[in-house]
Amino acid sequence: MTNDPAASAPTLAFDPTDPVALTQALVRRASVTPQEGGALALLDSVLAAEGYEVHRPVFSEPGTPDVENLYARIGSEAPVFVIAGHTDVVPVGDEAAWTRAPFGGTIEDGVLYGRGACDMKGGVAAMVAAAIRYRRANPDAPGSIAFLITGDEEGPAVNGTVKLLAWAHERGERFDHCILGEPTNPAAMSDMVKIGRRGSLTGKLTVQGTQGHVGYPHLADNPIRGMVRLLAALDATPLDTGTDHFDPSNLEVTTLDVGNAATNVIPAQAKAVFNIRFNDVWTPETLAAEIERRLREAAGNTVRYEVGFQPTNAVAFLTEPGPFVNMVADAVAAETGKRPALSTTGGTSDARFIKSYCPVVEYGVVGKTMHQIDECVAVADLVALERITHRLLGTYFAAQHGA
Amino acid sequence: MTNDPAASAPTLAFDPTDPVALTQALVRRASVTPQEGGALALLDSVLAAEGYEVHRPVFSEPGTPDVENLYARIGSEAPVFVIAGHTDVVPVGDEAAWTRAPFGGTIEDGVLYGRGACDMKGGVAAMVAAAIRYRRANPDAPGSIAFLITGDEEGPAVNGTVKLLAWAHERGERFDHCILGEPTNPAAMSDMVKIGRRGSLTGKLTVQGTQGHVGYPHLADNPIRGMVRLLAALDATPLDTGTDHFDPSNLEVTTLDVGNAATNVIPAQAKAVFNIRFNDVWTPETLAAEIERRLREAAGNTVRYEVGFQPTNAVAFLTEPGPFVNMVADAVAAETGKRPALSTTGGTSDARFIKSYCPVVEYGVVGKTMHQIDECVAVADLVALERITHRLLGTYFAAQHGA
Repeated sequence: MTNDPAASAPTLAFDPTDPVALTQALVRRASVTPQEGGALALLDSVLAAEGYEVHRPVFSEPGTPDVENLYARIGSEAPVFVIAGHTDVVPVGDEAAWTRAPFGGTIEDGVLYGRGACDMKGGVAAMVAAAIRYRRANPDAPGSIAFLITGDEEGPAVNGTVKLLAWAHERGERFDHCILGEPTNPAAMSDMVKIGRRGSLTGKLTVQGTQGHVGYPHLADNPIRGMVRLLAALDATPLDTGTDHFDPSNLEVTTLDVGNAATNVIPAQAKAVFNIRFNDVWTPETLAAEIERRLREAAGNTVRYEVGFQPTNAVAFLTEPGPFVNMVADAVAAETGKRPALSTTGGTSDARFIKSYCPVVEYGVVGKTMHQIDECVAVADLVALERITHRLLGTYFAAQHGA
Repeated sequence: MTNDPAASAPTLAFDPTDPVALTQALVRRASVTPQEGGALALLDSVLAAEGYEVHRPVFSEPGTPDVENLYARIGSEAPVFVIAGHTDVVPVGDEAAWTRAPFGGTIEDGVLYGRGACDMKGGVAAMVAAAIRYRRANPDAPGSIAFLITGDEEGPAVNGTVKLLAWAHERGERFDHCILGEPTNPAAMSDMVKIGRRGSLTGKLTVQGTQGHVGYPHLADNPIRGMVRLLAALDATPLDTGTDHFDPSNLEVTTLDVGNAATNVIPAQAKAVFNIRFNDVWTPETLAAEIERRLREAAGNTVRYEVGFQPTNAVAFLTEPGPFVNMVADAVAAETGKRPALSTTGGTSDARFIKSYCPVVEYGVVGKTMHQIDECVAVADLVALERITHRLLGTYFAAQHGA
């Protein structure tokens, strides 16, 4: 035993620079939101043993469960390179349908199985392993590496990254660049780096009618007729044609309900909910105004309706292609032999919160099985992600040296 | 006491030729479908006392309650003039909201209140009273008068008029003309004689999609988009422009349901139910074929849907204007001073079953309050309906005499 920081940590049964072993260890710590399940504790001990200053802030909010988070930093100088992620996972679902134990971390034929294997314990593990390997080899590297790991990404996302960022900022932490290890690749490790995300806006539309008997339609006003007209109008013209880095904005009606069981009754009301994934042409405000304009125009004086929008913190954002984005794409290309696409597709992620603090790029393993039965990750992909991250750290800090 | 048929009946506290007293007596016998409630028993004793042969067949069908009905006839010769109606009533609803007892038969300011007052105990009472007055004055009138009164019009309508007609036919009863005393007038006794009814066809439309995440719409297929397109197509062109005696056929979507609570999920399926009130351009079969054609055309190769139609016995029918229709309209005009419209509007009625046995015309009191809280009928309208029916019987049988 020595007197270094690692001495105080429990002895690990594996080498923390091995991304596969670390992924297995994390998968075996069941951490369905909001349960920490030992996953953050494991990272705590691993990082503390390497000399990181580790914090485990717990955040609260009335109406939501308390959630643990982790912030760890090594180095005291700028630039601060942040590696972000989450250790919480979605529920197992129908456990009987799994062909391997959901928290077993079994490896078969080069594939590691378990809830969170790709979303995103694999990503966290590979990046932690890479950072440890990098700092062990470069103890005097300039700048700092920080980990921003939440336990509330899959849940309400209230006591997670948003508060962790504010907490860190409050303590004087300043970030220069961030990589978020979400599973960005559809099929292969060379597929996709995400440099932004579309925003998300949800609206509720209610059309008022006048109830009556179907035999006397002139005494009634069927709200379904008006609803069909309004929804057709929302869908008639594309919201935009996309931008340099974004697909066209897209509206989907997610539900439409009347709930009238009587086939001889014209109902009084129809309700719809729609969600728009929008690009950087819009802000939530300008988009809501456009939707309101379309509805007003389609409704004329004949359709009585109300529309309301849920408050959203999911605005569209873009990390402009440039030196940092290129550095990530270069690292992927160097390790996979193929340059990844720079994409802004898919759902929202915690990157939408991080982008207010520093440029953020997302890259991780293949996400094909995320949230599914038999979620898994290829062992080779974990190894590749560790190597890509290691290369990225090298390039990043070498560039700072040179600057 | 004498030895005539009336002797065996309980003594009545009122004169059965008084349509107001008879309506009150019927209203006070609570007969919410399928309860007979004493209403048919009252008619039985009243008619038997006048020399009618009265039958009270009870019909059954698995899955529905047994229901009592009444068939009464006086005279043994043709022609047989049928007076049809029902004594069952819809439920009271919110009894506390009634300002008079729903089964009280209270008269205030010339208005008689109670469930069934207009739909259609008032109509039955006025016609019974008129028939009794007519036969008392014309014991040797040619032909026969028959009453076809069901206790299952407001309910499933399975153990009512359909079976009563078949039962009578089976016994060799043959009908020449029928008046059905449903409340046909919107506001005044001179408003409307109904000479037909539109048919009713109910369809269920299901659009299949592919569930997915709103962030990945290209991997999903939103069934609501297809549903809106199909429903818009059904509504785009009128089914017809109406016929000589019928309004245009009309389609109403009565419900539309998805039931998806997740605003980030594109649902797998959308369901709609629609009801068409159709005129004599269509049969249920040709109409279903037209709807199927429109859906097929709108769906193209992109919308996956299924449509099914509920079996219907509500076909459109018309009793062509001619001597019998004129006789009814003339009687209304003579008593009210204004010729009524010949209409085919409104919902369905038991006339759709009767029309297979003989020409049928509908005429009754003002239906404004039917099925509502404080259902009522004007005393003057009961008196008018008794006089109109009496006049009609006189003209009808006089014409037979002349023939």
